Amino acid sequence: SQVVVHKGSPRGVHFRRAGPREKVYFKPDEVRACVVTCGGLCPGINTVIREIVCGLNYMYGVDDILGIVGGYRGFYSKNTVKLTPKVVNDIHKRGGTSLLTSRGGHDTIKIVDSIQDRGINQVYIIGGDGTQKGAALIHEEVEKRGMKVAVAGIPKTIDNDIAVIDKSFGFDTAVEEAQRAINAAHVEVECVENGVGVVKLMGRYSGFIAMHATLASRDVDCCLIPESPFYLEGQGGLFQFIESRMKENGHVVIVIAEGAGQEFVAQSIHDVNQKDASGNRLLLDVGLWLSHKIKDHFTQVREMDVNMKYIDPTYMIRAIPSNASDNIYCTLLAQSAVHGAMAGYTGFTVGPVNGKHAYIPIARVTETQNTVRLTDRMWARLLSSTNQPSFLNSCDDILLQQERVDRDTVDMIHKMKITST
Amino acid sequence: SQVVVHKGSPRGVHFRRAGPREKVYFKPDEVRACVVTCGGLCPGINTVIREIVCGLNYMYGVDDILGIVGGYRGFYSKNTVKLTPKVVNDIHKRGGTSLLTSRGGHDTIKIVDSIQDRGINQVYIIGGDGTQKGAALIHEEVEKRGMKVAVAGIPKTIDNDIAVIDKSFGFDTAVEEAQRAINAAHVEVECVENGVGVVKLMGRYSGFIAMHATLASRDVDCCLIPESPFYLEGQGGLFQFIESRMKENGHVVIVIAEGAGQEFVAQSIHDVNQKDASGNRLLLDVGLWLSHKIKDHFTQVREMDVNMKYIDPTYMIRAIPSNASDNIYCTLLAQSAVHGAMAGYTGFTVGPVNGKHAYIPIARVTETQNTVRLTDRMWARLLSSTNQPSFLNSCDDILLQQERVDRDTVDMIHKMKITST
Amino acid sequence: SQVVVHKGSPRGVHFRRAGPREKVYFKPDEVRACVVTCGGLCPGINTVIREIVCGLNYMYGVDDILGIVGGYRGFYSKNTVKLTPKVVNDIHKRGGTSLLTSRGGHDTIKIVDSIQDRGINQVYIIGGDGTQKGAALIHEEVEKRGMKVAVAGIPKTIDNDIAVIDKSFGFDTAVEEAQRAINAAHVEVECVENGVGVVKLMGRYSGFIAMHATLASRDVDCCLIPESPFYLEGQGGLFQFIESRMKENGHVVIVIAEGAGQEFVAQSIHDVNQKDASGNRLLLDVGLWLSHKIKDHFTQVREMDVNMKYIDPTYMIRAIPSNASDNIYCTLLAQSAVHGAMAGYTGFTVGPVNGKHAYIPIARVTETQNTVRLTDRMWARLLSSTNQPSFLNSCDDILLQQERVDRDTVDMIHKMKITST
Amino acid sequence: SQVVVHKGSPRGVHFRRAGPREKVYFKPDEVRACVVTCGGLCPGINTVIREIVCGLNYMYGVDDILGIVGGYRGFYSKNTVKLTPKVVNDIHKRGGTSLLTSRGGHDTIKIVDSIQDRGINQVYIIGGDGTQKGAALIHEEVEKRGMKVAVAGIPKTIDNDIAVIDKSFGFDTAVEEAQRAINAAHVEVECVENGVGVVKLMGRYSGFIAMHATLASRDVDCCLIPESPFYLEGQGGLFQFIESRMKENGHVVIVIAEGAGQEFVAQSIHDVNQKDASGNRLLLDVGLWLSHKIKDHFTQVREMDVNMKYIDPTYMIRAIPSNASDNIYCTLLAQSAVHGAMAGYTGFTVGPVNGKHAYIPIARVTETQNTVRLTDRMWARLLSSTNQPSFLNSCDDILLQQERVDRDTVDMIHKMKITST
Repeated sequence: SQVVVHKGSPRGVHFRRAGPREKVYFKPDEVRACVVTCGGLCPGINTVIREIVCGLNYMYGVDDILGIVGGYRGFYSKNTVKLTPKVVNDIHKRGGTSLLTSRGGHDTIKIVDSIQDRGINQVYIIGGDGTQKGAALIHEEVEKRGMKVAVAGIPKTIDNDIAVIDKSFGFDTAVEEAQRAINAAHVEVECVENGVGVVKLMGRYSGFIAMHATLASRDVDCCLIPESPFYLEGQGGLFQFIESRMKENGHVVIVIAEGAGQEFVAQSIHDVNQKDASGNRLLLDVGLWLSHKIKDHFTQVREMDVNMKYIDPTYMIRAIPSNASDNIYCTLLAQSAVHGAMAGYTGFTVGPVNGKHAYIPIARVTETQNTVRLTDRMWARLLSSTNQPSFLNSCDDILLQQERVDRDTVDMIHKMKITST
Repeated sequence: SQVVVHKGSPRGVHFRRAGPREKVYFKPDEVRACVVTCGGLCPGINTVIREIVCGLNYMYGVDDILGIVGGYRGFYSKNTVKLTPKVVNDIHKRGGTSLLTSRGGHDTIKIVDSIQDRGINQVYIIGGDGTQKGAALIHEEVEKRGMKVAVAGIPKTIDNDIAVIDKSFGFDTAVEEAQRAINAAHVEVECVENGVGVVKLMGRYSGFIAMHATLASRDVDCCLIPESPFYLEGQGGLFQFIESRMKENGHVVIVIAEGAGQEFVAQSIHDVNQKDASGNRLLLDVGLWLSHKIKDHFTQVREMDVNMKYIDPTYMIRAIPSNASDNIYCTLLAQSAVHGAMAGYTGFTVGPVNGKHAYIPIARVTETQNTVRLTDRMWARLLSSTNQPSFLNSCDDILLQQERVDRDTVDMIHKMKITST
Repeated sequence: SQVVVHKGSPRGVHFRRAGPREKVYFKPDEVRACVVTCGGLCPGINTVIREIVCGLNYMYGVDDILGIVGGYRGFYSKNTVKLTPKVVNDIHKRGGTSLLTSRGGHDTIKIVDSIQDRGINQVYIIGGDGTQKGAALIHEEVEKRGMKVAVAGIPKTIDNDIAVIDKSFGFDTAVEEAQRAINAAHVEVECVENGVGVVKLMGRYSGFIAMHATLASRDVDCCLIPESPFYLEGQGGLFQFIESRMKENGHVVIVIAEGAGQEFVAQSIHDVNQKDASGNRLLLDVGLWLSHKIKDHFTQVREMDVNMKYIDPTYMIRAIPSNASDNIYCTLLAQSAVHGAMAGYTGFTVGPVNGKHAYIPIARVTETQNTVRLTDRMWARLLSSTNQPSFLNSCDDILLQQERVDRDTVDMIHKMKITST
Repeated sequence: SQVVVHKGSPRGVHFRRAGPREKVYFKPDEVRACVVTCGGLCPGINTVIREIVCGLNYMYGVDDILGIVGGYRGFYSKNTVKLTPKVVNDIHKRGGTSLLTSRGGHDTIKIVDSIQDRGINQVYIIGGDGTQKGAALIHEEVEKRGMKVAVAGIPKTIDNDIAVIDKSFGFDTAVEEAQRAINAAHVEVECVENGVGVVKLMGRYSGFIAMHATLASRDVDCCLIPESPFYLEGQGGLFQFIESRMKENGHVVIVIAEGAGQEFVAQSIHDVNQKDASGNRLLLDVGLWLSHKIKDHFTQVREMDVNMKYIDPTYMIRAIPSNASDNIYCTLLAQSAVHGAMAGYTGFTVGPVNGKHAYIPIARVTETQNTVRLTDRMWARLLSSTNQPSFLNSCDDILLQQERVDRDTVDMIHKMKITST
């Protein structure tokens, strides 16, 4: 029951497969568990909370479950709430987090003091990259003090940029909901002359939402992501592409991930190195910037009127309840976390690795980030469906690489091939 | 068959009731009709187009119907498209306008030349205030030239600010769709500490969408509309209200119509007297302005961290297809217009007046605008449900007025009253 | 402040206009109110409950509000629940009724005993025709005992078949949601050869939902309602119409109200005079019956294969939350009821009459039912848009009548008419 | 570039990985492709059609693409339609199939004659099990005649019961849409006393939709699928379970796959061995049967009133457009098929195998069916979340097996384990 990932080493990386264990470390009536949610909203948090509570209760008979309110700082600054299957029964139908959330507030000593004072021995931490790093610190401090406390992280990032695991919860819902914004942009621009729609989607460091939303929609002309630098002017630039599409179809729809093109915005405005309380880079609004740039270029340089429609659906996407697919996924994550903690694992996060749910040391998911690889099939599919410029000047064209990756080294024509007669 | 509106004069204003007429002015096979759509998008335009085409065809056997492409300028700068029931069969399920649209481009002489050249004798014009003024000019020019052409306007404004008629098409759909944005804002702010959600809704001159969306949602703490001036600082100001609600509930949701508070934005930025090509005042983004103001006030003056969430769902609302209620309404408008034009009426718009569909001279709907009356029951209901400040300093409190308006002058306790025993 | 309805008598029927009154009968701290919901589900019940509670609390400072659980029998067989603004805060976002419901269980003496025992002095009763009759009996018994108790009815019927009032809550939501089923039927049948879609919609005695859903959809070929008898075979019958439409378009979509054609089903099956616990006639499934009949006719008589698709979306429509339009409407109803009860009115129901919210003696809304008048414009519009058979054999054709109703008695060509030159 | 499936043999089954090939077999201007859709509706068919057309055109420059109308029989009984990127541009936003469909009509000789006569050299066949068997026959006949024609199958089954491939298109959308029906059933039954909701979902031979919809909803008490026999009466039977849940919660929601319990329905009605024109077993309505059985049992045997709510959302699920996730998936399938056919493969179907898109000989996907394995984790998760009876009498309990499957053979406590101090 191991999950094997081939990564660098000839023998691969092995994780323990998630699931119920024969030996249960904790006696149910000795468990005092707590759940905390940190960082920004993401569809599915409430489902994860619900299924941790229901999983502990239904599968192991655990009764004593506390909700920490308002993120990490809730450990030392707020009262807890009691969580029961009845209390959480309907929360998965609502967006947001019923435990409230905050950024920052991580004070390892105060938090572990609170865990100790309250007699908590299972800690479920739902949050993103910064939050998981905090979870690792809590785990270390807990071990240092010799406390028998299981620390389980459930990685949350709507951007799908968490390393190791196949995808993060809420991502599927976000891609679905992003369709509304893209549809609106498309309808707006196809009804006017020289319509240019810009839709900014989530994705600080990675363009997964933008890429998948583009592939799903079939109405997008160009998708810009942090992983693939672009430029505006000159041969092969974005302006040229926009102009040619407007000539051809009368309109253009551009999807841009919030983290794309930050170098431009930084140049045009100011310092880019600010971070928010979770340690995330504070991004300047590249969507607004791009809209102004396009408008200016066509109005002033090309003396064309463009009808610019800029949509930022971020909050409208983040705040909805998770869809069916994410509900199932959140249930699996929560049940894995519960099985792991009950079996006595600690300092782990949960998530599917190559299709199998596994227990992963927290450090492994925070040491790096998941990004769109430009040589992957998915990006190649996007390029072939939008036919957007590659923004590459050298001859090392991504598409050529792609072909080399995909081509059959052995070229025997088998049964499935049309036979020459 | 007259619709009576009591308005100032003791005898009221009379409009002709809309509907089929015994005498049909045009012979079906002599009709060459055209349809044009102008101005911004609004849910239901496609349904109106569809029902003009199907109404002419099914009810009167008219075959020769042209679509003018891209607004007024399409009359003289583009080819027409042929419209048949088959062509328009599914368009009501899509947002936008299948005939495309533009602002401005009204050149009376060129347009009437085109009408004459093409032998068109029924002109259906779907558009807002500026568009209807253009329709009146076309009607005048047509009469001046002695052309037997029926000019029918179907008033379009998502804002519901058209005078005389009870409501405008697309309004109901807009209020429905606005709920998504308000919900998102509410979820975002209730999950964090000191969350302030600001949702900007359509409404250049009137706050109908904001008012109805607020009443429908039950999640809004304060609704700001152009008709009701407000102020930010000091006793009874918006900042004070926000602070008290944050203390009470931990969060606040504000809905603001795009035309509200323009005097502030103007002061803080620049000239407000710009107009777009349709003659609409160009608005500065009051939502963005208000968000910054609130953020600044609490951060700097009150030294509180607020979690500001600003949502502008405008395009996502405008671009959706009309809901069932608006589909029926659009059908009624289109059928009225068709009956009117076939009966030989001209220079009219259509719409319900006190619940009955009527023919209204174009000038009557453009000479003034419909706004939220602060002494009306609907606004009183909103105030009593949000309990927001009235932003009035004098003792002439709206609620007091309201009570005077509503009180029974005769106070007999009838059968329905509880009897004293 | 009177609402006048011209109805038979030369002077019309007068109702008191709903709204806040100068004289409040009850002191807020003496009020003990209760809310009960009876009968089947309908979108908006939770909004009405919420707004009664919030209205009493916010507008009048009433604190003591009880929820009667599970319909009328909850008065004497169950404990009550305390209702506060906090408890009801989110219920309007959920379908169903948070107070639960049941049919029947009306025992006047036991109920009034319970009202007396619990010291309740305001009773809000949400329910349909049978429920309102029960409310009238409670009102009578309360008066007989000389109790100072306000009995207020909020009429609930998804079918819109309540007399006197303009429309009932939940109706708009139902028409909207019905579009899904009609769309599904239309997609199913347009993808196959000889596809016949049958969608059964609510409407025991009246076809309002069927009629409005048909007008909104534009995809329906024929709408069958209880008010308009139809026949299947022979010249001008339904089978002939279906066959001609299949020949023309390849498919047919029929919407049938559940109460339509009951005479046929009764003949083919058994006794039709059963009633449910609310006193409603128990209907046999006319949709299933019609589907079989059509299938049989074409398979056996015409030897044609038809692809029959029958959809009954009833529960999926009833169980959803109310839309924005109904939310506003439910708020108005609830606030009217609260104002009325606080002012000391009793034995009344609330609802808009000719566009103005009024207090109506309960008996007036239960003595008769609202049905689709076949001579009305709305039905005429439906007929002209579906072009379905009138199923009339005599020369008294509805459409002819319709024209007489609509025609202008005076035929002067006014300003709006095209002038002869 | 091989996809390896370990299946029985020590060396596993190898399929060719899907994707573009270095050597293209067909010259673009010599390609005459056709697309045909057969069998029942399924979300995503239009996306597959669109992406075959756009893929051929954008990726390979193929212009000559025909649509076969109305399923297999369209080859010999109808005219074709020309398919271009423009024609298919918006079809993915509509449910159903724009090429129409039918069951049966497979006449190998006539079809291959038509392919030959029309000069078609690429045939894309979208359909279920029966359709793919037909595709295999066409492929054989084509080879027999020595025609250089690529025959590509795109397996379609909303039930997800196709062997070898990971999942089928439309499945994700179906699970999502099924939530509406389950929600409605849940709202209906939780508002009444002794409410029993029964929702019948698709699944002739396999319970995937029922299982996933149950896991996603969290509102279902019991899920019945064809793979897991159940019984009604006695100890451990369904009636007992229903009664205990009603006592505990007041209501029960049951999801039943259409193919479950057919042996009971057959007994109570008649012969079960009928098949439809596609060769699918004609199922008797087990949902209706189960509803009656439950109603009868509780009314007559237990003398309890139950409120039975039966929902069959089948057509409302099948007819909707595909969601974002399925849109991406359909795009991948279509592009794989196009790459395969262009490379000269034939007699293949496409689909992901262990996460990688592969070319699979048609026979491999039709020789067996994919069903829910009761020893799998997913079914175990469902059982642990519903806590429904296993309907097993022996001590070989599924859950025990499950634990044995999951337990760690090596039980070293690693770094992630809580260390004993």
